[in-house]
Amino acid sequence: MFIRNAWYIAAWADEITDRPLPRRICNEPVVLFRDTGGHAAALLDMCCHRGAPLHLGRVSEQGLVCGYHGLVFDRSGRCVHVPGQEQIPDRARVRAFPVVEQDAFLWIWMGDPAKADPESIVRFPWHNDAAHWPHRHTVYPIKGAAMQMIDNLMDLTHLGYVHASTIGGNPMTHVAAKMDVERTPLGLKFTRWMLNSVPPPTYVKAVGFQGRIDRVQKFEFIAPGCITQFTSADEVGAYRSGAATQEELENSKLRFRLFHGLTPETETSCFYFWSALNGFRPEDSAATDMLFAETGRAFNEDRAVVEAQQARLDELGEAGLVDIRTDAARLHMRRTMERLAAEEAQALAAE
Amino acid sequence: MFIRNAWYIAAWADEITDRPLPRRICNEPVVLFRDTGGHAAALLDMCCHRGAPLHLGRVSEQGLVCGYHGLVFDRSGRCVHVPGQEQIPDRARVRAFPVVEQDAFLWIWMGDPAKADPESIVRFPWHNDAAHWPHRHTVYPIKGAAMQMIDNLMDLTHLGYVHASTIGGNPMTHVAAKMDVERTPLGLKFTRWMLNSVPPPTYVKAVGFQGRIDRVQKFEFIAPGCITQFTSADEVGAYRSGAATQEELENSKLRFRLFHGLTPETETSCFYFWSALNGFRPEDSAATDMLFAETGRAFNEDRAVVEAQQARLDELGEAGLVDIRTDAARLHMRRTMERLAAEEAQALAAE
Amino acid sequence: MFIRNAWYIAAWADEITDRPLPRRICNEPVVLFRDTGGHAAALLDMCCHRGAPLHLGRVSEQGLVCGYHGLVFDRSGRCVHVPGQEQIPDRARVRAFPVVEQDAFLWIWMGDPAKADPESIVRFPWHNDAAHWPHRHTVYPIKGAAMQMIDNLMDLTHLGYVHASTIGGNPMTHVAAKMDVERTPLGLKFTRWMLNSVPPPTYVKAVGFQGRIDRVQKFEFIAPGCITQFTSADEVGAYRSGAATQEELENSKLRFRLFHGLTPETETSCFYFWSALNGFRPEDSAATDMLFAETGRAFNEDRAVVEAQQARLDELGEAGLVDIRTDAARLHMRRTMERLAAEEAQALAAE
Repeated sequence: MFIRNAWYIAAWADEITDRPLPRRICNEPVVLFRDTGGHAAALLDMCCHRGAPLHLGRVSEQGLVCGYHGLVFDRSGRCVHVPGQEQIPDRARVRAFPVVEQDAFLWIWMGDPAKADPESIVRFPWHNDAAHWPHRHTVYPIKGAAMQMIDNLMDLTHLGYVHASTIGGNPMTHVAAKMDVERTPLGLKFTRWMLNSVPPPTYVKAVGFQGRIDRVQKFEFIAPGCITQFTSADEVGAYRSGAATQEELENSKLRFRLFHGLTPETETSCFYFWSALNGFRPEDSAATDMLFAETGRAFNEDRAVVEAQQARLDELGEAGLVDIRTDAARLHMRRTMERLAAEEAQALAAE
Repeated sequence: MFIRNAWYIAAWADEITDRPLPRRICNEPVVLFRDTGGHAAALLDMCCHRGAPLHLGRVSEQGLVCGYHGLVFDRSGRCVHVPGQEQIPDRARVRAFPVVEQDAFLWIWMGDPAKADPESIVRFPWHNDAAHWPHRHTVYPIKGAAMQMIDNLMDLTHLGYVHASTIGGNPMTHVAAKMDVERTPLGLKFTRWMLNSVPPPTYVKAVGFQGRIDRVQKFEFIAPGCITQFTSADEVGAYRSGAATQEELENSKLRFRLFHGLTPETETSCFYFWSALNGFRPEDSAATDMLFAETGRAFNEDRAVVEAQQARLDELGEAGLVDIRTDAARLHMRRTMERLAAEEAQALAAE
Repeated sequence: MFIRNAWYIAAWADEITDRPLPRRICNEPVVLFRDTGGHAAALLDMCCHRGAPLHLGRVSEQGLVCGYHGLVFDRSGRCVHVPGQEQIPDRARVRAFPVVEQDAFLWIWMGDPAKADPESIVRFPWHNDAAHWPHRHTVYPIKGAAMQMIDNLMDLTHLGYVHASTIGGNPMTHVAAKMDVERTPLGLKFTRWMLNSVPPPTYVKAVGFQGRIDRVQKFEFIAPGCITQFTSADEVGAYRSGAATQEELENSKLRFRLFHGLTPETETSCFYFWSALNGFRPEDSAATDMLFAETGRAFNEDRAVVEAQQARLDELGEAGLVDIRTDAARLHMRRTMERLAAEEAQALAAE
């Protein structure tokens, strides 16, 4: 079961062109395209005539032309042309999904269109600020549920095991990290302090740390699929008395942000939209490239372990698994998701 | 469900040799072979001893030898040799299917053998007339139901969309084509007139048309799986007063015939047996090759769209699809198939 | 259904290192590894924390470290370390399977650990006698049930059909072989005499037989998955009066042994552990290599036929298959397996 009354990332905005793009979202086959007026659109990827996938067609002035017999659909899913006849049957339409283009993403609403409020979309304006936060982005298809990927990001102790050679470093640094957690209506925020710690390989590569560092990560999870991550690191002692002012963090030698967006493809697979934003050497595009490449290496390590985990959970289930102390944030996230799913089910039953 | 009391094309006759050929037909695993007497045969592809597929064996004087423990079966499926014992158990036999070799095909009957009348087999004698109608033939495995391929051939407006760059040409030419339809006991015949039309790329390649042409296609669908197609084209005005005499059509500058045979492999896949017959330059084997190659390019375009369509229908079903005017021939074909299936089910229930 | 209260071969002992090895046995995902003390171990391949497969981890001093969040398990499956907490929950353990390393194999017990008696393990000490019986070994994954592979080995008349060009030779030699059968508590022994027979290609290659030979094969099947094979061959007349003394067999010109071990992976796939032991030219490693390579060629022929057979049985079942005279040993084997399975089911019901 998916939470449907929510905005998911359907695509990076720059993926949407006049070449129709098929993508399965919450187990619905969707076709994404940009019409000749420049507006993005999302339709069910199945012609209402003979069932051919619409992504095999092409965009014309009138809309999306089916590649089989030439029916044309506008952004609202309405059929606007049937070759060989003047009158267009009322039933000739395909389902359209509300979409909004914002902060470099195309957002999609898979639930009741009447409830789709664009104001509730997660904001990440740094994607639009190439001067101060230049970024690179991509999407990874994952053969594991979105929930497993979010789990992964809610328990960062995995960094020392899965990412030892990249962004992780010493396992005990992560296990011993001081953690401040704050609950929010749609998830939680947490800050991890790793003071006086050995910098992981990627950090050394980025800014040439020589000795130990003070390292801070600020995460926020916003249900059902977004996680923002702000990271700062500097020489030991750079932060006032083992904490840090906002100013100190913003002046850190290493400073980057990551956006993690998880969109369910099926019950057991998802799309991982992510970006890496370079705030430490914004004028240096090689630094942005390096940050993106190193982060990608690490996220491929996550992909491998999550896909293997998914295969086991598919076969043997989650019953009997044992929670440990470092699962605290993960468990709060799960409770938030369960609450939202229950609320949606209740609202649906009441209709 | 398949119509079983019908002749299907099992293979091109030249595919049948002393090397056993496995082929799934109406979801039965069948082995096809030619015995040392030159007779084609079709048996269930499973030895009655330990279940090994018989296509792993070889043809001997006595019949088809199982490649596992050496039991031998004749064309009727009777076991004629068991290594290590004189007496052959009565139960030692495998199911045999009636077959007839005719017009370059091996035809197979998947239903009640008592009802298998060779007189009812579709005839296509031009396959035997290499002097006037030289041809090339092949078989395409399609990951789509036979019904979807027949649908495809019953609504030729797809030519302008799927085959724009090959045999299709301008979409509106096909949509506006004048069409004469005639119902028959086992399907329908229809003629499509595209007078004063732009020749598609393949036609120009074939005979070098310079301007617009008059183009005629005569189709016949014969349930459950055969479609014959006679095509003629000539300079505008070649046909008398916008129609054409038989003689005019036979003297057309471009003249070819296609045979389309669809045999179910499973509920969602089929074999597409097809041939292209060159009636415009019969002495020129390069022209026959060209016609075959261009037709093959177009049929691979059909394959792609039908396979994608099948995936959608498998997932979302046909309910809710909307018929349009150009579906008329297709709908008549479907009704014929439904009638035959119903008659067969009724006869079976009455037994 | 599998017989579970039995020792199966999990691996060749030399496959077990500090690199965890995943292997599915009786449809359970198992991870095999050797701890730093040199002891082999077998655990369920799923961490009890978040379900990640343990084979993605690594072996440390304390045990097997999960590659996701660092939990550590000892050979008994007990969790001995949870990063971030002192206390280890009682429930934090994974299932361990009894294992024994013996005669070059790692044996595993998939049933009730209380019933796992190492004394009942099949012995094959020649694997340890490199001076007199040097051998090569391997494991073939087979997409066919273990039972189908055992069937294969219980009816050697297949040699003349499946292995005509390798270890088989003339079909009638095998069909006409004189066979002595002796039943045992866990299976059967049988000896096949092929006197005055044409040597198969592999035999000629091995020792250069010029004319016909006397050939003897002694097989023993021990349920549920082991078959030992002792083969001797010599010039015609080498064996006393058409039989042979033990001494004559041991002095045969050609003398080799094969071990066949079948372990279920799933209901329709298995692992085929096999070795070839050179007793005819023990000092000549090229002869051992040749024996191994030729045997492997033959066993790949078995693999192909059994995998094709499995596909048919999966689809059409075994009902209606017809037994023949040469099935006698196979049928006794099947009855033994059925008896053991029934005894196990009965014991389980009585608990």
